[in-house]
Amino acid sequence: MLIETGSRAKAASRLMARASSARKDTALLALAGALDEARASIQSANDIDVQTARANGLSEAMLDRLALNDERITALCADLRHLTELPDPVGVRFDETVLPNGLRLRKQRVPLGVLGVIYESRPNVTMDVAGLAIKTGNAAILRGGSETIHSNRALVAVIQRTLLACDLPADAVQFIDSPDRGLILELLKLHDYIDIIIPRGGAKLHAFCRENSQIPVITGGMGICHLFVDESADLTASLDVIFNAKVQRPSTCNSLDTTLVHMAVADEFLPCLVRHLAKAGVSFRAEPRALAHLSALDPALSTAVYAAGPEDFDTEWLSLVLGLKVVADLDEAMAHIARHSSAHSDGILTGSSENAARFIAEVDSAAVYVNASTRFTDGGQFGLGAEVAVSTQRLHARGPMGLPELTTYKWVAEGQYHVRV
Amino acid sequence: MLIETGSRAKAASRLMARASSARKDTALLALAGALDEARASIQSANDIDVQTARANGLSEAMLDRLALNDERITALCADLRHLTELPDPVGVRFDETVLPNGLRLRKQRVPLGVLGVIYESRPNVTMDVAGLAIKTGNAAILRGGSETIHSNRALVAVIQRTLLACDLPADAVQFIDSPDRGLILELLKLHDYIDIIIPRGGAKLHAFCRENSQIPVITGGMGICHLFVDESADLTASLDVIFNAKVQRPSTCNSLDTTLVHMAVADEFLPCLVRHLAKAGVSFRAEPRALAHLSALDPALSTAVYAAGPEDFDTEWLSLVLGLKVVADLDEAMAHIARHSSAHSDGILTGSSENAARFIAEVDSAAVYVNASTRFTDGGQFGLGAEVAVSTQRLHARGPMGLPELTTYKWVAEGQYHVRV
Repeated sequence: MLIETGSRAKAASRLMARASSARKDTALLALAGALDEARASIQSANDIDVQTARANGLSEAMLDRLALNDERITALCADLRHLTELPDPVGVRFDETVLPNGLRLRKQRVPLGVLGVIYESRPNVTMDVAGLAIKTGNAAILRGGSETIHSNRALVAVIQRTLLACDLPADAVQFIDSPDRGLILELLKLHDYIDIIIPRGGAKLHAFCRENSQIPVITGGMGICHLFVDESADLTASLDVIFNAKVQRPSTCNSLDTTLVHMAVADEFLPCLVRHLAKAGVSFRAEPRALAHLSALDPALSTAVYAAGPEDFDTEWLSLVLGLKVVADLDEAMAHIARHSSAHSDGILTGSSENAARFIAEVDSAAVYVNASTRFTDGGQFGLGAEVAVSTQRLHARGPMGLPELTTYKWVAEGQYHVRV
Repeated sequence: MLIETGSRAKAASRLMARASSARKDTALLALAGALDEARASIQSANDIDVQTARANGLSEAMLDRLALNDERITALCADLRHLTELPDPVGVRFDETVLPNGLRLRKQRVPLGVLGVIYESRPNVTMDVAGLAIKTGNAAILRGGSETIHSNRALVAVIQRTLLACDLPADAVQFIDSPDRGLILELLKLHDYIDIIIPRGGAKLHAFCRENSQIPVITGGMGICHLFVDESADLTASLDVIFNAKVQRPSTCNSLDTTLVHMAVADEFLPCLVRHLAKAGVSFRAEPRALAHLSALDPALSTAVYAAGPEDFDTEWLSLVLGLKVVADLDEAMAHIARHSSAHSDGILTGSSENAARFIAEVDSAAVYVNASTRFTDGGQFGLGAEVAVSTQRLHARGPMGLPELTTYKWVAEGQYHVRV
């Protein structure tokens, strides 16, 4: 059944690849307008999803992720309009050269083709992905969570209507309109039609996609992040950075999970850190050396400090919990990071340019920081204009992915009837 | 059992990633010297492989691929020395920027990590891959064909001895010293240790790797290549280009498989083409319209022309066979290519800049040619200095892959205790 969907997506992707930047931007503006006008029907579809979810006993947090309120629709419209202000990566030429034999050679950006996007409860991902696909000349097959099926059906109807009205193929954005979870597996098998799988969800979804597909999967979204407080760090400023990295939005993959502290400053720094972060509700998992430095805390605070368990330094907390460890030096800090980091975002807080340089050279994470919060690992923060995903894989794209990362390139060679000698 | 190999490769890859360009180049020169000196022992090991293969009844072509004669060893030494003249991609900085908040951001090239390379009878691939891995700071696990096991064992002994002598980890180049084919499957399962699988072999090997691994696979090596002779083409020059693309080295993936001819010039061009290429031993598979234009050929030539069977336009010939088809126009030519090409190398021969532009824009192959032979799709021909593979996949790298394609990047952000607001 999905083979037909795949085949239509492939055909649509060829037309999308040839669409001019102007046509794609026109479609994005039209889509923003259509979404704005369709608020009522979208929200009543969304209401059905929300009520069903409530009846099924979903948590308030899940219900919140599910809801398409007025504010969120307005934000989606703004995002679509914002995309039109970004440069179109398709057609960009690079590495242009003339070979000694006179053959003119260049690379030229082309869309990836067909994106397979699998996500869970947030229906705004539907519009987000549609916008990114249109902008980059890709086609997309969407598989949202079954709990958002009415919302997604309504959104995709608006998208397809707009595509047609703008002389673009409606099949460029298709939606698997069925709650059957078996179809996810079927989607993952469409390697003749889908060029890349983008899972938007937790580590389990990513693993499931990798294990069950021959299609390249953009892996991401999982971050066990570290900051190392070196002996030469500005300790007061370090408190602010760690507070920001842990507390600002603990549910995100770029939030801090473990603080490593140089033993020369542990006695001064660790109690301050615990006092400062405990005020925000943070609790701590400390290994024995860190625990020793915290023994003199007042009883009210010490209840927030637990001895670290064996798995704690391999846990992405996604909540107000922070691992604490004392290390002898930079080498021990980097060895801990090499062993426990998910290679998402790791940083050093230091006054030593030598140690900063070693940390940059030797820590191999998607984003390596010197004297900054790990919370910056984000397409928006890095100035990419739009964010497709944060990749923790090594091939194709690493870290925040912007529009160009939804393209590939072809080589173009122009000659005068050149032959190889 | 291979987990130990993987784990040692991963540890070695960390040391290789930090090796300076000078140290890596020193090792490459030392390796060239050591290989030169070890000729006698390598050739006697190779003799065992060749004799065993002969006793097992392998074809002369296979025996030739297997042989490490003096000339080939000299060429391998030269290749290793040549690598030292190429720029080291590791450490190269790009996309440097200062964000509005003052955070200094850049990307910096780092090695991919651990390469898993699976290949068949040619033992020179062992030295070739070792050289590329050392140059780019990667570690490699090699699995050569069982028929070359003595040669590979001798080569890897030289490589590991040289690595150690140059203060680099011997485990950076490991070799699966067993003819057990089950170990290929085990190697493909090492996704915790291997970052990329590079198969060097036929389409079957590539498919086997993709089907059995979660590790990204560089797919390549299979080319169903087309040249379209437009009505405005210089027909005499076109004959030379097609002759070159088909005849120069028909066993390669970039050699021509199908010639499409505009119907306006078919009557003039097709008989000339058949006459010209038949002299070199080419035979033809022509669809009915092409066949009709060839009916008046003299009997001696017409024996080289066969009616095309249903699979012929989906066959990579790798031999002196050429498909012939007459098309009504550029659109029919591009539709045929979209349907039958393996997206490796396809070209147009034309005098029309408008048609050339359409062909470039609409044909989505790794290499798209205007007025040139498809035989140029090659790292050496494209001036990359070294060739890792020719990729026909869309992600990470497309077409000829050079040294930078064996690297990825990390983001480096340097601040003054920056926090996200």
